[in-house]
Amino acid sequence: MKRRDFIQKTSIASLAAGTTLATPSIAKANTQFKWKMVTAWPKNFPGLGTNANLLAKMITEMSGGRIKVKVYGAKELVPAFEVFDAVSKGTAEMGHSGAYYWKGKSEATQFFSAVPFGLTAQEMNAWLYYGGGMELWRELYKPFGIIPAATGNSGVQMAGWFNREINNINDLKGLKMRIPGLGGEVLRRAGGTTVNIPGGELFTSLQSGALDATEWVGPYNDLAFGFYKVAKYYYYPGWHEPGSTMEALINEKAFNELPKDLQACVLTACKAANMDMISEYTARNNQALNTLINKHKVKVLPLPDDVLRKLKQLSDEVVLELANKDPMSKKIYDSVSQFRTQVIQWGDISELAFLKARSL
Amino acid sequence: MKRRDFIQKTSIASLAAGTTLATPSIAKANTQFKWKMVTAWPKNFPGLGTNANLLAKMITEMSGGRIKVKVYGAKELVPAFEVFDAVSKGTAEMGHSGAYYWKGKSEATQFFSAVPFGLTAQEMNAWLYYGGGMELWRELYKPFGIIPAATGNSGVQMAGWFNREINNINDLKGLKMRIPGLGGEVLRRAGGTTVNIPGGELFTSLQSGALDATEWVGPYNDLAFGFYKVAKYYYYPGWHEPGSTMEALINEKAFNELPKDLQACVLTACKAANMDMISEYTARNNQALNTLINKHKVKVLPLPDDVLRKLKQLSDEVVLELANKDPMSKKIYDSVSQFRTQVIQWGDISELAFLKARSL
Repeated sequence: MKRRDFIQKTSIASLAAGTTLATPSIAKANTQFKWKMVTAWPKNFPGLGTNANLLAKMITEMSGGRIKVKVYGAKELVPAFEVFDAVSKGTAEMGHSGAYYWKGKSEATQFFSAVPFGLTAQEMNAWLYYGGGMELWRELYKPFGIIPAATGNSGVQMAGWFNREINNINDLKGLKMRIPGLGGEVLRRAGGTTVNIPGGELFTSLQSGALDATEWVGPYNDLAFGFYKVAKYYYYPGWHEPGSTMEALINEKAFNELPKDLQACVLTACKAANMDMISEYTARNNQALNTLINKHKVKVLPLPDDVLRKLKQLSDEVVLELANKDPMSKKIYDSVSQFRTQVIQWGDISELAFLKARSL
Repeated sequence: MKRRDFIQKTSIASLAAGTTLATPSIAKANTQFKWKMVTAWPKNFPGLGTNANLLAKMITEMSGGRIKVKVYGAKELVPAFEVFDAVSKGTAEMGHSGAYYWKGKSEATQFFSAVPFGLTAQEMNAWLYYGGGMELWRELYKPFGIIPAATGNSGVQMAGWFNREINNINDLKGLKMRIPGLGGEVLRRAGGTTVNIPGGELFTSLQSGALDATEWVGPYNDLAFGFYKVAKYYYYPGWHEPGSTMEALINEKAFNELPKDLQACVLTACKAANMDMISEYTARNNQALNTLINKHKVKVLPLPDDVLRKLKQLSDEVVLELANKDPMSKKIYDSVSQFRTQVIQWGDISELAFLKARSL
């Protein structure tokens, strides 16, 4: 064993154990932790996988290597849709995913990822950190032995890629579209058909006609997938995902074994990563949008107001039904919908009024 | 000296100094640092002073107390407008302020706080973290021995409190208003007079008629000052400060003396604090707005489009003149204005389009 290895593997406290000065808190403070972070994304996937990497890096660096966090892409250790269970069981100490993947555990998880006509990134974080959202999220995951944290946001997404023009609500009838979650339920009520196809197969499905349309994320991720080659129209805005939150999952038992300073490092890193992702998407989306418009001559079109009005009406119904599925869903719905009412009032005279003024 | 005190004040490495295992890196890793953070705000001032407190707390907690950061309100150690010099000289290791206060050092500082008709909070952070802004900011402060970091954002502010209605641009002629910075220059070009009055005297100045109008921040801070008692009209949007960034100043020499893990703690804490402040303002502004409207019956009015168009035209002139003051200002202007053009294009089909759709 090399001397450096010995120093790394031996806590400083144990070196001093012969003196009267060693205390349990110092022993704990110098213990080495090796954590695994399983993710719902392909390794290094832009925006999402890279955010998991950043989060792991920040924790490792701030802890001076006392926690080493190793990131696993989807399927490397567990498949994407088993991330929650892996963290719950302690197979991995951390996870990085989106809460709507776990609606099989509880319908209410969907409130912590994306709600059609819901909150924007900025509003969502305001609700989580200052509107009681975080407390409710912790309560929801508590029975699973998981501590959640917000670790990123994609911002307003795009409505998606379509092979036909959408001029009125009837154009959605019979449309075969990949659109998951609550947005998918809204499309079904508008007469469309939702198809569940993994990201990697969307391109060929659009090409073959198995799909008429797909939503994905926004220009940054969509450009990389090359959808502009197989779909004519790129619609906005992303009514179904106005501010999709990504989550860090932390195994509660592993967290409780950390000394307080490392606990603070883990949670603070999540908050910093949360700031980072929305910044990355905001910057990269606009670069990618330029490439799509100027280089690939993509037709970027707005969904007509009448279509949006109808989708909003259907969304309200779908979200209200979700609220009534169980008491926890109702409790979260009541909190977020009260917050939403107020934040829209403020948003109308701040963000919206300013953005309108700037575009006059 | 109590045993705990002895342990706190003595580095672990020095305890082990008699052994062959002590190394410089361990010695450095266990050194105690006592840092002072001077601020441009009254102690505990909501949103701003509380963010300084949070930042200090996060650094102290994540470091396990190896850096203890003590926060000083304005005037406690140095006056508000000497924060920059205090950090530059090393009187304090950190500062918490707004970059536009330092235009006497360099006109270009103003690009890192608030620019009329400039970037929103989300866009500003995108430019800083992913658009080259942070690198330029570091370059700007380098000659002063200061490392800057974004540590918060107030979001879109309000246009301010007025004792008369603003129906057209001529209503701004002769208006005596407290509005600092670039926004103030715009008002002067619109025929108004700017008056420089400290925050604490604004209420009585409005009451006595020494002022016709004042901008401050937004509902959260404005409600606390009671302006609703002495001004009839509350105008929006805050065209002059659409996303005011707050800064952490770090003395470069003090930073370089930290081991790498603590350096990471300091910078990551700033990024997390940056996420926290905009969340706090977004949540609290909407609560306060409700109180202003429903309890105090405040008339909340939009500035007419024609007035906004004229203010925007004047703002473009003012900002362009700033760009031409020196090569560094030009370099920063070129970066931010190119980013702005693209981000507006993306914002028009994402945030703006979604907010409009939600309000249909």
